[in-house]
Amino acid sequence: MFSFNVISQSQDCLARTGVIETTHGKIETPIFMPVGTLGSVKSVTPEELLACGAQIILGNTYHLYLRPGCDIIDLFSGLHRFMHWQGPILTDSGGFQLFSLAKLAKITEEGYAFQSHLDGSSHLLSPEKSMEVQFCLDSDIIMCLDQCTRYPADRDEALKALELTTRWARRCKTVWEKNKTGGALFGIVQGGMHKELRKKSLADLMEIEFPGYAVGGLSVGEPKDLMREMSAWTIPRLPEHLPRYIMGVGTPEDIVELVGMGADMFDCVIPTRNARNGQLFTHAGTINICNSRFKYDTNPVDSGCTCYTCMNYSRAYLRHLYQARELLAYRLNTLHNLHYYLDLAKQIRAAIQGDRYETFKREFYDKRQSG
Amino acid sequence: MFSFNVISQSQDCLARTGVIETTHGKIETPIFMPVGTLGSVKSVTPEELLACGAQIILGNTYHLYLRPGCDIIDLFSGLHRFMHWQGPILTDSGGFQLFSLAKLAKITEEGYAFQSHLDGSSHLLSPEKSMEVQFCLDSDIIMCLDQCTRYPADRDEALKALELTTRWARRCKTVWEKNKTGGALFGIVQGGMHKELRKKSLADLMEIEFPGYAVGGLSVGEPKDLMREMSAWTIPRLPEHLPRYIMGVGTPEDIVELVGMGADMFDCVIPTRNARNGQLFTHAGTINICNSRFKYDTNPVDSGCTCYTCMNYSRAYLRHLYQARELLAYRLNTLHNLHYYLDLAKQIRAAIQGDRYETFKREFYDKRQSG
Repeated sequence: MFSFNVISQSQDCLARTGVIETTHGKIETPIFMPVGTLGSVKSVTPEELLACGAQIILGNTYHLYLRPGCDIIDLFSGLHRFMHWQGPILTDSGGFQLFSLAKLAKITEEGYAFQSHLDGSSHLLSPEKSMEVQFCLDSDIIMCLDQCTRYPADRDEALKALELTTRWARRCKTVWEKNKTGGALFGIVQGGMHKELRKKSLADLMEIEFPGYAVGGLSVGEPKDLMREMSAWTIPRLPEHLPRYIMGVGTPEDIVELVGMGADMFDCVIPTRNARNGQLFTHAGTINICNSRFKYDTNPVDSGCTCYTCMNYSRAYLRHLYQARELLAYRLNTLHNLHYYLDLAKQIRAAIQGDRYETFKREFYDKRQSG
Repeated sequence: MFSFNVISQSQDCLARTGVIETTHGKIETPIFMPVGTLGSVKSVTPEELLACGAQIILGNTYHLYLRPGCDIIDLFSGLHRFMHWQGPILTDSGGFQLFSLAKLAKITEEGYAFQSHLDGSSHLLSPEKSMEVQFCLDSDIIMCLDQCTRYPADRDEALKALELTTRWARRCKTVWEKNKTGGALFGIVQGGMHKELRKKSLADLMEIEFPGYAVGGLSVGEPKDLMREMSAWTIPRLPEHLPRYIMGVGTPEDIVELVGMGADMFDCVIPTRNARNGQLFTHAGTINICNSRFKYDTNPVDSGCTCYTCMNYSRAYLRHLYQARELLAYRLNTLHNLHYYLDLAKQIRAAIQGDRYETFKREFYDKRQSG
């Protein structure tokens, strides 16, 4: 079961709201998806994710395939029951992890031949294998195995990668059609920083036909302006009636901008990873909780924030916990940052529904400059 | 405000139930107090502590004095608001930490002269200073600064330590009477493993008169049998109408035994520290969640346990989280172990109230042998 409906469309930009329906529940878009690499969003529980406003989370196929492995997750009929998250789950294909751990992987027509980063054992992640693992995880949104293009990459390199991605996408579609589970299969647009290659990649994938499309290969080291330029060029060309997912993006500003280009879904480790490094998001910009100016600060992280952390703890306390490396620090910081991202998505949806997205954006940037 | 009333007394042993009333709330005894060394019970929130059945927690004066320091905690009028725990707090005196970090401390009549384990700065923890810090923490139960006797210690060494402890106790009482806050001051019985010295220590402290008495210097390396023997000898001699607190004890079995000797209060890092090492308590004994026999185990840690962890997660999942060093592992394990200890205290109270403590003990040991 999978559907997507556009609910409202801004008049003065490409931003839109929508609803995705999956076997495990509804998702209102635009949405941010917290990353739960190994079967937990680090330090927090599913109940807390819900309280932060999470509607869908992401699991990493590469990591979960290696540990705990499909034989264990099969005992629970998928990732949902294993990790006690009842809502929708999107799983990546494993391709991006093998791209970033490239030293351990060799790409052939067949797939990624790689050694486990855990024990050095040899594996082959083919499009078919990636599908099999994602079926086992009972994923609600399944991603095609792709080859991400590194930055910088010349036209030839980018073309080769996108063509392989297309051939793999076709193989993924074949397996998916045969084994039709409840999950939807998304194609991933590649093409590096070459606009006509992005166009070609999209056209090729649209011929195969997917229930949703993602843009991959962004935020891989390119300058911010180039990322935005490629997004502005690519996103509006994705089919309007299908969900558009921008992979691995980004900062709050990136999300605000890319929503304006018509993006619906985002995932990124920034809120969770930065939390564990003491970097907290506020309406007036980012703060580092370690900073000595917070030593005697009895205020919450972000005035007006209604997250559990801000409702109950001060900057002075959070700084103390972080300095003392108390486990609770990582958790309270993570809750705040996730709430910030998910509340931002909520504000974005409200602004689009009220057809005041450009006003919202202006206010968003004004508040940051006041900080 | 502080009172203690014995509510029920076993007919066939010395176990009793009681109620302590403090400014921050009531405590039903016998009770176990989770340890929150640095202003958090590692990895868990106050709301979760309450859900586990916690009624009072412990803070460490030595650690909190060094970090974050009294100037910061003063801004919150004490530890309660700083750490968002509304219930009663017992603080130790700092003596035990300086005893276990002995290389850094020098004992004189004045107090402990020591170097901070954090930055090497020099400090003096006198009885007066310990009181001042505990007043700043707004502790509900304040402990006298004592000198703990190491094991083994001959009669002379133990005598010197207990005599210094008594002189310090008198100085603590003087400061406490002058600055009377809402917290009660407890004296600490020392005397090593020498029964007549334990008797002398207690007699000397009773002359000074405290609202409660603790037994210190147990579980410092002596054999289990000797600890139990000293407990059996000392605890029944503590004033019957006042709370009896056995410091730093212990295993579930220790608690079950010492309650039978008339003990009311316990604190120990075992449930929390062991949780972080993957050691989990069950009615049938302890398990190590890393054990490969749990790899495919879809059962909860302890069947019949109603803690958040057991209600929602399997041994296989907990083992996976622990193997992957996921932060959620420490938290779910801690919640389970704290629930185990606090539920044990609850069962103990119910058994005493029903005057079936000996039966309860027999069943407790029978279940463990079945495991």
